[in-house]
Amino acid sequence: MATLGLIEYADASAEVRAVYDDIMATRKTDWINNFWKALANDPPTLRRTWESVKQIMAPAAIDALTKEMIYLAVSASNQCGYCIASHTAAARKAGMSDAQFAELMAVVGMANETNRLASGYQVEVDERFKV
Amino acid sequence: MATLGLIEYADASAEVRAVYDDIMATRKTDWINNFWKALANDPPTLRRTWESVKQIMAPAAIDALTKEMIYLAVSASNQCGYCIASHTAAARKAGMSDAQFAELMAVVGMANETNRLASGYQVEVDERFKV
Amino acid sequence: MATLGLIEYADASAEVRAVYDDIMATRKTDWINNFWKALANDPPTLRRTWESVKQIMAPAAIDALTKEMIYLAVSASNQCGYCIASHTAAARKAGMSDAQFAELMAVVGMANETNRLASGYQVEVDERFKV
Amino acid sequence: MATLGLIEYADASAEVRAVYDDIMATRKTDWINNFWKALANDPPTLRRTWESVKQIMAPAAIDALTKEMIYLAVSASNQCGYCIASHTAAARKAGMSDAQFAELMAVVGMANETNRLASGYQVEVDERFKV
Amino acid sequence: MATLGLIEYADASAEVRAVYDDIMATRKTDWINNFWKALANDPPTLRRTWESVKQIMAPAAIDALTKEMIYLAVSASNQCGYCIASHTAAARKAGMSDAQFAELMAVVGMANETNRLASGYQVEVDERFKV
Amino acid sequence: MATLGLIEYADASAEVRAVYDDIMATRKTDWINNFWKALANDPPTLRRTWESVKQIMAPAAIDALTKEMIYLAVSASNQCGYCIASHTAAARKAGMSDAQFAELMAVVGMANETNRLASGYQVEVDERFKV
Repeated sequence: MATLGLIEYADASAEVRAVYDDIMATRKTDWINNFWKALANDPPTLRRTWESVKQIMAPAAIDALTKEMIYLAVSASNQCGYCIASHTAAARKAGMSDAQFAELMAVVGMANETNRLASGYQVEVDERFKV
Repeated sequence: MATLGLIEYADASAEVRAVYDDIMATRKTDWINNFWKALANDPPTLRRTWESVKQIMAPAAIDALTKEMIYLAVSASNQCGYCIASHTAAARKAGMSDAQFAELMAVVGMANETNRLASGYQVEVDERFKV
Repeated sequence: MATLGLIEYADASAEVRAVYDDIMATRKTDWINNFWKALANDPPTLRRTWESVKQIMAPAAIDALTKEMIYLAVSASNQCGYCIASHTAAARKAGMSDAQFAELMAVVGMANETNRLASGYQVEVDERFKV
Repeated sequence: MATLGLIEYADASAEVRAVYDDIMATRKTDWINNFWKALANDPPTLRRTWESVKQIMAPAAIDALTKEMIYLAVSASNQCGYCIASHTAAARKAGMSDAQFAELMAVVGMANETNRLASGYQVEVDERFKV
Repeated sequence: MATLGLIEYADASAEVRAVYDDIMATRKTDWINNFWKALANDPPTLRRTWESVKQIMAPAAIDALTKEMIYLAVSASNQCGYCIASHTAAARKAGMSDAQFAELMAVVGMANETNRLASGYQVEVDERFKV
Repeated sequence: MATLGLIEYADASAEVRAVYDDIMATRKTDWINNFWKALANDPPTLRRTWESVKQIMAPAAIDALTKEMIYLAVSASNQCGYCIASHTAAARKAGMSDAQFAELMAVVGMANETNRLASGYQVEVDERFKV
C-alpha cells in the first residue's frame, strides 16, 4: 500500500494523532487519506509537511478554490497519479465545477505545449520581460 | 535570437501579419513578443497556436487572471525561462499583485514537493478518490 | 507485461544468458527482474545498459549504498513507478534503513520545491557560484 | 535580478534579518545568497522554507555530505540552473571531491536513462518489488 | 474510467459525433479510444485538440511513421503511461518494427542521460552552436 | 565554463585524446564541443558515454537523420539549453531542413500537451492498447 506501510489512527502515536486531528478539523472531514498515513512513518516530515500545506493553502491573496486548482494544475503537469486523484477531489470539494476542471486542463495542456515551443525554438527573452 | 530567426512585422507575409494584428488587437498592445516572431517561420503553427491560446485563455468558467496564474504555475514548475518571464508579465498585466505572485509560487513549490513524496512513498490511491 | 514481451532465461540466446549470468553473479542473486527481461529483446541495449550500470554503480569515490540512494532519489523525482519499486528494493538490499529512506524522501521533496522557487522567482546565479 | 527584486540585509525587516542571521550562523558563513534574498519578499515563505531546509539537511540517519549530493542529484536531474550552481557549491563546502562529483553525475545520468527505458518498454513491476 | 467519465458514441451530441466520425475516417478505423471519449466532456477542447493533432500528424516534410515515433519518444521521455500505450499502438500501425522500437527507446534513454550530464556539469554552449 | 573546467586537446591525456580522435573521425569534423571537454574530467564516463552514443546513433533500423531528430525532440521536451543547441546543429548537419525542424517542434509541443490531458483527465488505458 506504501513503502513503509500506512499508519492508521488506532495505531498512531500521540504525536501523529495530533496531526491527524488537526488535518480533520482544518478540512472539516472525518478521515485521513493515504498520503498522510504514509508520511506518518516519519513524524517530523508528517508535521512539517502538514504545517506547510496548511499555511500555504489557507485563503489569503489567492482564494482557496484557485489555490486548489493551481495545485491540481501542477500535479497534472507532473503526471503524478496519486496527486491528480487527491487534488481533483480537493478542488471539487472547494467548489470546482466540471467546466472549470475542463478549462483548467486546457490551460495546463497549452502551457506544456508552448513551454516546449519556446525552448525548442531557442527564443530569447524580450527586453521588456527582463526583471 | 532564435533557431530560425525572428520575423518582424515589416518583413512578414500577409498571413503572418493577420495573426500579428489579431494578437495585438486581442491583447490591446502595440508590439509582438519574440515567441510569436519565432513561430512565424512556420505560419500554420503560428496560426494554430495563437488560435488555441486565444480560445483557451479567454475568460469563461475561469477568469482571465486565474488562467494567467495557472499558466505561470505550469511554466514555473517546468522551469521554462522564457515562459516564466513572459507569463509573469502577462499575469501582472491581468492584475496579479506581488502578494498573489508570492502565494502562487508557494503553492507551486509545495505541489512539487508533495508530488514526489506521494510517488516516492508509493502511496496507493484511496478508494474514495478513484474515478 | 512489456511492449515486446519478457525473455525468460530458458528462452534466451547464449548472448543474453551471458548478461543474465553476469547480473546474477554481480548482484549475488538467483533471479532476473523484469527490466532486464524486457531489454533482452534488444541484446545490444541489454549488454550496453548492464555494462554501464555495473561500472557506474560499483563502489569507488562514492559507496554502494549512497549510489543506490541517489538512484532512488532521481527515480522518485522523475516519478517512475517501476524504478521507484526496483531501486527501493536495491537500496534496502544495500542497507538502507527506514530512517534513511524517510530522510532521502524529505531531501527529494525539498529539492523539488526549492528548484521551482528558484526558477519561478527568476533568481540570478550569485557571482560566487559561477564556474 | 529576480521577479520581486532582492532584499539586502541593510534593507531587511527585523523578521527577515532574524532568518538571515540564522542562515549565516547555521552555515558558518557571512553572506546570504540570492535565493533567500528573493524569498525575503514573502517573509512567511522565507521563514518556512529556511526552517524546512534547516531541519531536513541536518545530519541524522544520512550524513550532511550525502544529503548535499542528493540535493544536487535532484537539481541536476531537474535541470535547474540556479540550483545546480548553488548546490554544487554547497556540496563542495561539505567535502565533495571532484571524483565524487563525477560519480554523482554518472549515477544521475544513468538513472535518467533507465527510468525512460523502464517506462518506454512498459515494464510491469515484479511481484517481489511490490509493497 | 476518467475524471468526467467517457462519452460513448451512442450518447454523444451531434457536435461530438462529427469529431468522432472524422477521427475514424482519418484513421481508417471503426472505434474511438478513451482519450477522445474523455475530452468529449469538453467539446471545444475535443475539437481543437483533434484538429491540431490531425494537422500536425499529417505527413509533410516529415513522414507519418517518423512523426509517430517522435510522438512516442516524447511520451516515453515524459513517462505518460496512457500515451506510451496508445502511441506505441499508433506507431506500430504506421509500420514501426520491433527493431525500430528498440532503437527509438535507446535514443530516448541516451538523450535523457546526456541532457542531465550537460546540465549537471554546467556546460556552456559552444560559440558555433549559438543562434 | 563548466563545473570541473574544460579539457582541451593539447592538455589531454593519451586516453582522452584517443576518444577525441574517434569523435572527430566518426563525425568527420576537426573540433570537439564543450560537452565532451567537460566529461573528459572523468575519463571512464567520457569513454562510456561516447561509445554508447556512437553505437546508438549509428544508422540501422532507423536512419541517422531521424535519430538526430528524435534526440532533439527529447532535448526540447526536457528543455535542456545546451542539448537543444548542440542537437539542432547535429540534426542540421544530418540534413534537417527548416520545414522538418518546424514540424518536429509542432509534434513535440502537441505530444507535451496531450500527455498532460491524458494524465489530468485520468484516462484509463484501452483494453486494445494493453501489452
